[in-house]
Amino acid sequence: MKRQNIRTLSLIVCTLTYLLVGAAVFDALETENEILQRKLVARVREKLKTKYRMSNADYEILEATIVKSVPHKAGYQWKFSGAFYFATTVITTIGYGHSTPMTDAGKIFCMLYALAGIPLGLIMFQSIGERMNTFAAKLLRFVRRAAGKEPVVTSSDLIVVCTGWGGLLIFGGAFAFSSYENWSYFDAVYYCFVTLTTIGFGDFVALQKRSSLQTQPEYVVFSLVFILFGLTVISAAMNLLVLRFLTMNTEDERRDEQEAILAAQGLVRVGDPVGDDFGGRLPLSDNVSLASCSCYQLPDEKLRQRHRKNTEQTHGGPPTFAGMTTRPKY
Amino acid sequence: MKRQNIRTLSLIVCTLTYLLVGAAVFDALETENEILQRKLVARVREKLKTKYRMSNADYEILEATIVKSVPHKAGYQWKFSGAFYFATTVITTIGYGHSTPMTDAGKIFCMLYALAGIPLGLIMFQSIGERMNTFAAKLLRFVRRAAGKEPVVTSSDLIVVCTGWGGLLIFGGAFAFSSYENWSYFDAVYYCFVTLTTIGFGDFVALQKRSSLQTQPEYVVFSLVFILFGLTVISAAMNLLVLRFLTMNTEDERRDEQEAILAAQGLVRVGDPVGDDFGGRLPLSDNVSLASCSCYQLPDEKLRQRHRKNTEQTHGGPPTFAGMTTRPKY
Repeated sequence: MKRQNIRTLSLIVCTLTYLLVGAAVFDALETENEILQRKLVARVREKLKTKYRMSNADYEILEATIVKSVPHKAGYQWKFSGAFYFATTVITTIGYGHSTPMTDAGKIFCMLYALAGIPLGLIMFQSIGERMNTFAAKLLRFVRRAAGKEPVVTSSDLIVVCTGWGGLLIFGGAFAFSSYENWSYFDAVYYCFVTLTTIGFGDFVALQKRSSLQTQPEYVVFSLVFILFGLTVISAAMNLLVLRFLTMNTEDERRDEQEAILAAQGLVRVGDPVGDDFGGRLPLSDNVSLASCSCYQLPDEKLRQRHRKNTEQTHGGPPTFAGMTTRPKY
Repeated sequence: MKRQNIRTLSLIVCTLTYLLVGAAVFDALETENEILQRKLVARVREKLKTKYRMSNADYEILEATIVKSVPHKAGYQWKFSGAFYFATTVITTIGYGHSTPMTDAGKIFCMLYALAGIPLGLIMFQSIGERMNTFAAKLLRFVRRAAGKEPVVTSSDLIVVCTGWGGLLIFGGAFAFSSYENWSYFDAVYYCFVTLTTIGFGDFVALQKRSSLQTQPEYVVFSLVFILFGLTVISAAMNLLVLRFLTMNTEDERRDEQEAILAAQGLVRVGDPVGDDFGGRLPLSDNVSLASCSCYQLPDEKLRQRHRKNTEQTHGGPPTFAGMTTRPKY
């Protein structure tokens, strides 16, 4: 069976197992509390219904009214600042759902808006993330050189930088949100985490109290900057950690294809491992990445490598390999 | 200024403009309705409060009770099926928020669970997506060959296939959800779209009525399969459409680096355009992709290209280029 099929199947098995385990743990952690809550809520409801002799019909109307009125606490959700906040939660796929389009026109526009906006946002965040990594790498090289060390930066160094930034954002941001929203620090950390992972449950949403959207412009700006800058840092981490894995199957397809070509040229037998020259190696090693780790070594450092490679090639390398690259020609 | 910096800056400008325009349109579409809703809600609330002479304190208690009781309509949210549904919304980052962990232990586990689960899910969906594209490509080639056409498949063909599947899923799935949930067909389409883009507002959430989580196992399975399969199709589309753009800056960094190396070797002046051999060309053309489009051409088709390349190389190609690949050596 092809390596990429085995990998995909193992990933499916892993994910399903992960979901089963997660479900079991959530069940164990939350069910008891849920049962208690349900009893409590039911008791209070009945108490109030009997106290005020409220008819079921009226209770249902009141229920619908109250559920509808929840977003109104934030002030006008669709005045510009609120609409901008909403648009941000759409293209980032956070989607708190603290306020959602009610008109059909709004829903249609929301769908079309997301269709173009999500890829645009994704590409922008990845692009800034990659720039941040490149800048961080340059800075680290400069510092190492200044410290008289060899100015080589691996992706692990950059992962440390990203994780540092991410932690700083979540635990630092939590301070601001807990003070603005009167949330416990723990809940604020939970909010920051759920937001920057773009899960966006909506159980905690910033700017939803005391008409903040209209009355606290500085806090609105802070919240938006937190989300946009936070997602950039997360993207930088993703660019280093995840992006390489997203194209693994593609790499393997390339390798198989190049093996086939070489086999057809009678250079190798199909199944023979294809060497580094043919991009066959999976980008798993510490300082290999589909992200911009290629530029985290000094040119002269790379030059030495290339030179070594060239001399190897010109001395021993089979001439038919000349100019054959890991990237397919189109 | 470096091409990759200009690209990143333009992306930032585009996205911010896109957000401003979106905010303006949402404001125009929704504000009027919001004002009406607020008036209506306020009127009903006052009417009921006066009818039952309800104190503000009691009203606030009732409000809190009702808001808390909303998730209870679904049945037990944290019994296994519900917990599995929740775990799915976490690792996919849909995060409806229809039900969220209430205990601190639940919140902590949720964060740790997402930390590993989201990358795992992302990699799995991308992996299956790529497999689907490869399979679709093979199938298309087979069909073309059977029809006596040249068996070449471009990424546009695959994008058409993906879009077809995506449309089928959203508009087909909407039928099922509208009948199960008594939503209008339009609302069901909106739900499917918001779910498969992982925005997951939570204004429409499947399995939240008539204790469906416990009473309709077949519908629970259908909803979960819809989400998981749906996200696979979306990932297949992303693999073709977006993935290539996520590594553009990296490609440019490689090109710059290779220019520097060649300049150092006195082969080109820095700034000279570097040709195809050095992977400098941006993957923008129709059938170029960082996704697995490299394998959408028949080996013999590629072979001809490689052969052409080799002869060019052996005849005219500068010998020092031998074995130099677009991928950096580590």
